[in-house]
Amino acid sequence: MSIIVQKYGGTSVGSIEKIKAVAKRVIAEKERGNSIVVVVSAMGKTTDQLVELSKKISQNPCKRDLDMLLSTGEQVSISLLSMAFQEYGYDSISLTGFQAGIITKGPYTKNKISDIDIRKIKNYLNKEKIVVVAGFQGINEEGDITTLGRGGSDTTAVALAAKLECECSIYTDVEGVYSVDPRLYKHAKKLNTISYEEMIEMASLGSGVMETRAVEIGWKYKVPIYVASSSENIKGTYIKEYDKTMEEKVITGLSLNNDIVMITINNILFKSSNIADIFEKVAKENINVDMISQTSPLNKRVNISFTISKEDSHLIKKVMREIKSKNKELEILIEENISKISLIGIGMMNQSGVTGRVFRALANNKIEFRQVTTSEISISYTLDSINRERAVNVLAREFNL
Amino acid sequence: MSIIVQKYGGTSVGSIEKIKAVAKRVIAEKERGNSIVVVVSAMGKTTDQLVELSKKISQNPCKRDLDMLLSTGEQVSISLLSMAFQEYGYDSISLTGFQAGIITKGPYTKNKISDIDIRKIKNYLNKEKIVVVAGFQGINEEGDITTLGRGGSDTTAVALAAKLECECSIYTDVEGVYSVDPRLYKHAKKLNTISYEEMIEMASLGSGVMETRAVEIGWKYKVPIYVASSSENIKGTYIKEYDKTMEEKVITGLSLNNDIVMITINNILFKSSNIADIFEKVAKENINVDMISQTSPLNKRVNISFTISKEDSHLIKKVMREIKSKNKELEILIEENISKISLIGIGMMNQSGVTGRVFRALANNKIEFRQVTTSEISISYTLDSINRERAVNVLAREFNL
Repeated sequence: MSIIVQKYGGTSVGSIEKIKAVAKRVIAEKERGNSIVVVVSAMGKTTDQLVELSKKISQNPCKRDLDMLLSTGEQVSISLLSMAFQEYGYDSISLTGFQAGIITKGPYTKNKISDIDIRKIKNYLNKEKIVVVAGFQGINEEGDITTLGRGGSDTTAVALAAKLECECSIYTDVEGVYSVDPRLYKHAKKLNTISYEEMIEMASLGSGVMETRAVEIGWKYKVPIYVASSSENIKGTYIKEYDKTMEEKVITGLSLNNDIVMITINNILFKSSNIADIFEKVAKENINVDMISQTSPLNKRVNISFTISKEDSHLIKKVMREIKSKNKELEILIEENISKISLIGIGMMNQSGVTGRVFRALANNKIEFRQVTTSEISISYTLDSINRERAVNVLAREFNL
Repeated sequence: MSIIVQKYGGTSVGSIEKIKAVAKRVIAEKERGNSIVVVVSAMGKTTDQLVELSKKISQNPCKRDLDMLLSTGEQVSISLLSMAFQEYGYDSISLTGFQAGIITKGPYTKNKISDIDIRKIKNYLNKEKIVVVAGFQGINEEGDITTLGRGGSDTTAVALAAKLECECSIYTDVEGVYSVDPRLYKHAKKLNTISYEEMIEMASLGSGVMETRAVEIGWKYKVPIYVASSSENIKGTYIKEYDKTMEEKVITGLSLNNDIVMITINNILFKSSNIADIFEKVAKENINVDMISQTSPLNKRVNISFTISKEDSHLIKKVMREIKSKNKELEILIEENISKISLIGIGMMNQSGVTGRVFRALANNKIEFRQVTTSEISISYTLDSINRERAVNVLAREFNL
């Protein structure tokens, strides 16, 4: 008999009918002879609705109170799911974050799990109970109820699996991890396996299947993570350690990010402190800078481009106006209709020529790109948004994604 | 500087606007130099809605899970109220039942407070924070979240005041305790004070201002309880220890209970085991028997009347059919349009003639009563419901209520 941690997200427990359906799926797994820990999120849009409620009192509510408020969402889910198990004749126990022994630290609304006291859960598993744990929440050393921020329930599930030394299944509204988002490229292939490293690149580059933090924990503790549909009984994707069988493919996946703004500053007097000044001003406004590319100086003048999230578009304009007003010689260009395409694959590390193939494929289709940046296992390009669909199709075909 | 515990019920925190209004009232009290602990219930009809939700999964949901579910209602209220304090510039801390140190025991959904570890609350009060505590909930020795059943928030508030050795104010949707329900008798007077004993009789006899349990705790620990309106700034009623100044009035209050059924069994062979048999059968169905009156036997035959709650009407008919089928000689009468009027007053203990005055007043108005029972500080009558309004008016005038 082995232990399995299963996680069901908000959409999967979005109604009473869906909660009953989840209960039946879990019971089926239990009937195969496994011990089950189920981690659940708040029902549907509950968390958003609670945030809205708090905004009616304060635009900037006390974050400790916000954690107190938001954590009720998962508490409702666990109690209803546990009732469903018992209605179907199975013994179960619902546990909030603190009852499940999930100790956290950090700033409210963005806590991290620092430890899990697993004894209570083990004790209930030994008694043959289905253990239902509230995702997204824990308790800090002061005894305050805390939440884990975006993707927090995934983190709870993977961290529990790490402690219980078992596999973690993430059941969600997608059917697994695809090489390309199927909404972008209808021939996209579902992956049987993907390595932790690749998944982290995919996730942080905009593929919304799982939060990066959860995959990082999985990687650190070597937890096999299985991502699959919560409603259909079809094969999903394993996220696990890289092994040789994965090496056949050069590129594992492609991700697209439309929500970006590209800033180009030309004619900067070449001095590292000048560039530092610019990025310091950007950082001061809490604007997250993504791709940065700089070309080699010509006549002691240098050009630099970088991208930021579209949500900071208003702020960056303010910063750039200030910079321009003090440095009249600078040429500043802010482009808003920009997309970013990234190709990810561990295979890239051992195979040369990927960049050449990309350049050729795009050139053959008359698609111009603006910027290129690379990491060990990924290459990212920015291009005009108008070309993004064609570019996705060209590259997906080129690398058989 | 003194500590005050204030409790606001579900109606008083039924909307965001009402929560803000409560915050302002508490702040006004704080500004008078007092340290405040605020106990709140779930917003409006939240608890009922959560019970409804659970019924969609199970008609008889696991009670541990039901406690887990219901306790979220108060957790939402405390976080929102605490946010409001901070929005108005006051330091506050929200605490769930377990965080406030409220230890309970007993069956789920009907736990009782066994102890309160008051250190955390005292610590926050010393730091000048407004302490916001979730009513109706606690934690048992196994670490399960529990609820206290009907009137649980009143119980939380009074128990906290007992531990903190301070006064407890219950703010509610009535303006205090009236000698008679103002909906029944428009000239009803609001009482300045009432003794714990009288309040318990009033509460258990159907006057819905406060739950009996909370008053009992107040009595046991000598907590002065102030009941007043949560929306108007008008003088309420003190529930406190009986003192001589209260003695002037013979009768403090009158309460009416319409939801009763009266059963009369005639021609019982006079043997105590026969009567015991009847009440054993009634008890077996968990039917709560209220007023019992028996007349002296005649020809070795005895007649007995008793009342029960209307909600058990269906059950009692079943029991009576069974009894009749085995004891053909019995005459059984079940009357459903029956009301019960009770007169309560500690003054009654030292003054004779109350019963006489009641009989005379009713007789003068041609109102017949069915049964009479008495306790040290109360007299109760049953009568045909059709006469109840006239009877309330006659008795309220007679005793100047």
